Amino acid sequence: MRDVAVIGVGMTEFGELWSDSLRTIWAKAALAALADAGVDEVDLITVGCMSSGLFVGQEHLASVLADELGMAGVPSARVESACASGGLALRTGFAEVASGLSDTVLVTGVEKMTDVDGSDATYALGTAADQEWEGFHGITFPGLYAMLAMAHMERYGTTVEQLAAVAVKNHANGLLNPHAQYHLKLTVEDVLSSTMVADPLHLFDCSPVTDGAAAVILTTVERAKEINGKRPVVKISGSGLATDTITLANREDLTELKAVRLAADRAYAMADRKPGDMHVVEVHDCFTIAEIMATEAIGLFEPGEGGAAAAGGLTALNGKIPVNTSGGLKSKGHPVGATGVAQAAEIVTQLRGEAGQRQVEGATVGLAQNMGGSGGSSIVHIMEVVK
Amino acid sequence: MRDVAVIGVGMTEFGELWSDSLRTIWAKAALAALADAGVDEVDLITVGCMSSGLFVGQEHLASVLADELGMAGVPSARVESACASGGLALRTGFAEVASGLSDTVLVTGVEKMTDVDGSDATYALGTAADQEWEGFHGITFPGLYAMLAMAHMERYGTTVEQLAAVAVKNHANGLLNPHAQYHLKLTVEDVLSSTMVADPLHLFDCSPVTDGAAAVILTTVERAKEINGKRPVVKISGSGLATDTITLANREDLTELKAVRLAADRAYAMADRKPGDMHVVEVHDCFTIAEIMATEAIGLFEPGEGGAAAAGGLTALNGKIPVNTSGGLKSKGHPVGATGVAQAAEIVTQLRGEAGQRQVEGATVGLAQNMGGSGGSSIVHIMEVVK
Repeated sequence: MRDVAVIGVGMTEFGELWSDSLRTIWAKAALAALADAGVDEVDLITVGCMSSGLFVGQEHLASVLADELGMAGVPSARVESACASGGLALRTGFAEVASGLSDTVLVTGVEKMTDVDGSDATYALGTAADQEWEGFHGITFPGLYAMLAMAHMERYGTTVEQLAAVAVKNHANGLLNPHAQYHLKLTVEDVLSSTMVADPLHLFDCSPVTDGAAAVILTTVERAKEINGKRPVVKISGSGLATDTITLANREDLTELKAVRLAADRAYAMADRKPGDMHVVEVHDCFTIAEIMATEAIGLFEPGEGGAAAAGGLTALNGKIPVNTSGGLKSKGHPVGATGVAQAAEIVTQLRGEAGQRQVEGATVGLAQNMGGSGGSSIVHIMEVVK
Repeated sequence: MRDVAVIGVGMTEFGELWSDSLRTIWAKAALAALADAGVDEVDLITVGCMSSGLFVGQEHLASVLADELGMAGVPSARVESACASGGLALRTGFAEVASGLSDTVLVTGVEKMTDVDGSDATYALGTAADQEWEGFHGITFPGLYAMLAMAHMERYGTTVEQLAAVAVKNHANGLLNPHAQYHLKLTVEDVLSSTMVADPLHLFDCSPVTDGAAAVILTTVERAKEINGKRPVVKISGSGLATDTITLANREDLTELKAVRLAADRAYAMADRKPGDMHVVEVHDCFTIAEIMATEAIGLFEPGEGGAAAAGGLTALNGKIPVNTSGGLKSKGHPVGATGVAQAAEIVTQLRGEAGQRQVEGATVGLAQNMGGSGGSSIVHIMEVVK
């Protein structure tokens, strides 16, 4: 298996991008990544997108986008794993370069979510849950995560203040990220006084609906060393995927995100790394409880200790292990198909030492954890600077 | 890169499967392939599906399906390239085994198309065309392929009788395939007297709307030799992908399927094979003109000679190069996401000498060509018996 490096990253501003279509947003991110890498040809494009069919009425998306970029002819593949579609696009590109089938891959993620009205966006997102066993009965994602939060609070004593601390931290980080959707300083009191969406989750416990795209360029480590100049070469050392029962009713344990644990274990094993080796981590905080449970599932904290860790500042930018330095889904925004690629872009930016005001000093090993639905799938990548 | 073999195939009957849901259909095909291969564990599942979001309101499909199979936990990835989604699922699994990331992969394709009413199915299929430049203006796929047919007829003198000959041949083959949707003997006169859908395409020039699923199991050639017993080991020797401008208006030439030519060229180069080496071929005959153009694009016939070749019996079961021995999309049916995997299953069945009444004697090398939209993407695989 060949060693695979990330040699370029790019993303659009995340937000309500009314004046751009899906294809325009996507092309901006793709061009930014190509420019950052200094390459203008690729062997393959991968596109992570959850539901261009339901959001904008367009399938066959990878072909549309290759064409939009003036790359008609180049192989282009769309992948979908709900909100983990971006992570899956990265995995798919990684396998292509690792196998030798492709030398250079443009990995992208995109979602255009604001061109439908509010109820339709909620319906489209809801198709990431089991439609026969969950969606049909009327539940949407805030409700599913509220049940996970309730179970976690009941078992471990996690508090709404601890949930709120996640939002406060991520919005503080987002203030330092020019691409973030919301530049908004929050307090715990702000979160707790915001509208209740699904008890115990307030409005500010929830990530927003967002338009955006992100891209990274992959090639072999060997080639990266030739073309990277003085920038550190960042290698993908671990890649892990997993699923879990999609329906919460079938889970053995609602207080653990098993797919996340399995995906992380597989990535750690491939990279020969352990949680304590990480210097910077992006996790899938679609809701504040998701970040708490994810930091436990990837082994940063013991089960039940994620809430106290967040409230105690351990995951802050200057904490023991900075989590979601980008602002996370909460502040940066959550264009669902783009999120996994944007997470990888943040880790690469940190490991290159190019994260500006939100730089984690000396970071050389990082992890990105992307998740679909209420934990029905998860994808974890570990990246590190090649010495 | 590791050599990759197909060690099992399975598919459901194709047709209007009113009593089964998408997940049930899919599980039947998956279980059949696992049983055929004699394995009960896999490292990865890939799922080709064009639009479960629009057809049945379910995204996050790969997670739903892993769970349905009792394999929650196992990595599972959905891919989409419109009607070439099945071929893309095969490519994705191939890259995983070739790279060493996975040892055994369950590659699947599925579509449940009859649970929506007729107009919605046409809308869903239409999202494989460019929605901004084609769909918005009201054209659907019969119209797009009718334009390709008109251009081909104008330039090369291809006739409606030659188009009809493709349907007649594929329905004759389909009579020999128990999984086919339509067991129906047709004559050229039957085709030409059927309802005109989009001039020059009659009803019997068009593939049907179909429910169905297909699956194949991949592993290394090395492992296949250990577990395959006396059955021939079938290797995937070539895999090629390509895109083209999705919008017909942007094509340089409407009489050639450029994505098919590029994908085939890439597959031939990888396999070190040429068109004349093929013993049996499945092509993407969503419309009769598509088969004619595909047989030209993959190099079986010179440009403009595909129609005469079909009418002259060169592609018949006992012809020079049998094409669509399965009955093709035309007779076997076209559950869009399943088609590419079903094509691969047919080639493997032929190369194993297990195709019964439709067996091509002595076939050891075959090709499957899958296509998205009106040629906006294509995926070609070459398979051969390991000596």
